[in-house]
Amino acid sequence: MKVNGTAYRTVWLGKRDREVEIIDQRKLPFAFETMTLRSVADTALAIRRMVVRGAGCIGAVAGYGMYLAAEECRAGEPSVDWFDNCFIRQGETLCKTRPTAVNLRWAVDRQIGTVCGADCSVEQKVKLARQCATEIADEDAEMCRSIGEHGRSLIEEISQKKGRKNVVNILTHCNAGWLAFVDFGSATAPIYAAHEQGIPLHVWVDETRPRNQGARLTAWELGQQGIPHSVIVDNTGGHLMQHGQVDLVITGTDRTTYTGDVANKIGTYLKALAAQDNEVPFYVALPSSTFDWDISDGVKHIPIEQRDSREVSIISGKCRGDEKEMEVNLLAPGSSVANYAFDVTPARLITGLITERGICSANERSVFQLFPEKKPKDFD
Amino acid sequence: MKVNGTAYRTVWLGKRDREVEIIDQRKLPFAFETMTLRSVADTALAIRRMVVRGAGCIGAVAGYGMYLAAEECRAGEPSVDWFDNCFIRQGETLCKTRPTAVNLRWAVDRQIGTVCGADCSVEQKVKLARQCATEIADEDAEMCRSIGEHGRSLIEEISQKKGRKNVVNILTHCNAGWLAFVDFGSATAPIYAAHEQGIPLHVWVDETRPRNQGARLTAWELGQQGIPHSVIVDNTGGHLMQHGQVDLVITGTDRTTYTGDVANKIGTYLKALAAQDNEVPFYVALPSSTFDWDISDGVKHIPIEQRDSREVSIISGKCRGDEKEMEVNLLAPGSSVANYAFDVTPARLITGLITERGICSANERSVFQLFPEKKPKDFD
Repeated sequence: MKVNGTAYRTVWLGKRDREVEIIDQRKLPFAFETMTLRSVADTALAIRRMVVRGAGCIGAVAGYGMYLAAEECRAGEPSVDWFDNCFIRQGETLCKTRPTAVNLRWAVDRQIGTVCGADCSVEQKVKLARQCATEIADEDAEMCRSIGEHGRSLIEEISQKKGRKNVVNILTHCNAGWLAFVDFGSATAPIYAAHEQGIPLHVWVDETRPRNQGARLTAWELGQQGIPHSVIVDNTGGHLMQHGQVDLVITGTDRTTYTGDVANKIGTYLKALAAQDNEVPFYVALPSSTFDWDISDGVKHIPIEQRDSREVSIISGKCRGDEKEMEVNLLAPGSSVANYAFDVTPARLITGLITERGICSANERSVFQLFPEKKPKDFD
Repeated sequence: MKVNGTAYRTVWLGKRDREVEIIDQRKLPFAFETMTLRSVADTALAIRRMVVRGAGCIGAVAGYGMYLAAEECRAGEPSVDWFDNCFIRQGETLCKTRPTAVNLRWAVDRQIGTVCGADCSVEQKVKLARQCATEIADEDAEMCRSIGEHGRSLIEEISQKKGRKNVVNILTHCNAGWLAFVDFGSATAPIYAAHEQGIPLHVWVDETRPRNQGARLTAWELGQQGIPHSVIVDNTGGHLMQHGQVDLVITGTDRTTYTGDVANKIGTYLKALAAQDNEVPFYVALPSSTFDWDISDGVKHIPIEQRDSREVSIISGKCRGDEKEMEVNLLAPGSSVANYAFDVTPARLITGLITERGICSANERSVFQLFPEKKPKDFD
């Protein structure tokens, strides 16, 4: 997507060999800076320090990190066996950076399978690693593009009903934008596709406490594409829906049961309740890699991480005139904090799931219709 | 209530004549400072600059401000007529500070009615003004104490059901605490009364963006009374309710229709939806002065104020080691903000209203049973 008018992905090969470029997402929205990765160590540090975040983005960066691993392992013209061992060890290093990131492990495993599984020279293997990294990124981008196409049709339908002179109001929570993937994003992809097509839009952006990814990242993304938007505090969505100011909600998801329950950033459930109470369609956009094919009851069985209380008590922002960001404490001294990172929105509150294969209802039957290869043999 | 172990109200007569003391609520929770008002000008400035806020508190401070007015108007031993005119003019000055504060106008009118309506000497009138100010404050405190008593019974009932070894978990939104009144508060009064009685409690405190009155004021109040509590971001309540971690919700209200709709701090509606979805009792505590006896449909007819976008984009807190508070900007540069101050929770989501006269259901019939003098003649 565009940054200052130029097209970017969140990760790409540098102009020179052995270089991978990423956007330093920690600096957003106050500064746009890129960072060059030249080694597995660089890559591991960038993932650990959350220079990049978001499932798809982390997976793609890990894929490119494995290309850097291949470049490092080839040094000294080693034997194929030595190279393969080195490559696997480097993969382990990367996986340790964020042990719960499913896409990271998946990208590393795919690289190891491709590279170590190939019967060829070390030089050929390095080429394979480079090619595999590019494929992972391209596939992620293509998946999000497809989500965008399918979701666009929903927005188009609403726009036709309202008439082209009227703006379609979409509410989103957190950042399921292109910064969290390689390009386009999940929840944002339909918005970008509809905007591209000339449909007049306005996006309500939940600031998304505690980490404010909405106010920082989603608002920045939308601004860079020239899409009208307003940042609101997370308390506001219900009021807007009561007054007909939201036509559609689209969020992302961190984990989706095959029955359609959605674990996403804390607060998603509250917006889904308000959407239902006001008959506003509530869609969740996801690449099918976020499906959990084992869990049937999300509220009961998806564990919800509790995070550092400082995410709540301390907030970071920019002081007037000052170059760097400042942290301030928001809390009454001595008060405790509880910080749950996600909540689960039950399928009954979700109008539909927007996947790379199309849109389905948030229930078992409908999900298996779209992903028949996942259907258990005994499923009726 | 207690501050550092000493009992306080939000406003009281100073040790010397012509002095009224208030708590500087802008400094909380990082510093506890009192301020001495010696004139109507002092009082007007304190109200305008939000040194004090909250309906009951503003009303009481205005009441005491009118006592200061009487002291000022008596200077130079004027005639009774001159004094009365001066007193009325001073009242107008006070009312202009926050034109929408109903309690302010009410307290000023009550003082004018009492003082100017009395057929007595100027000296007597000054005494009357002083007495009337004390009465207004005492009545506010007594009303909140009654709300506390009625609400306490609800908490006691839950505690008995759960067994005394188990903690009762109460969620509250914003600050409807003693700082917003003269003493006890509305939503907090039942909590303080139950704590006093030895019922083990824990309070979930919504931070309440954008102005964070929960994280700043409610958390501070509870901490000062030694009541266990955790501050949470406004997104969290639904998750807690899904997992049985909330036994009861109590909020305040800024305006309540006689049909039971409640206009309160933005986000209240979302918590009420979650409470209903999880069968958690949702109560609203209010002195009956917040009833609007003219409006029947709150969602349609209560106007919702939009406030300064800087309330959302800029947040204030304390830097480490630094004495003074700092402001930081949270927002992507160039992004717009929408800032709705309140939302309306429909009566159907409210289990009951806790008033100074007792608890009633959130509907016309039940409200009129408790306040029969307000019942229209044609009400069946």
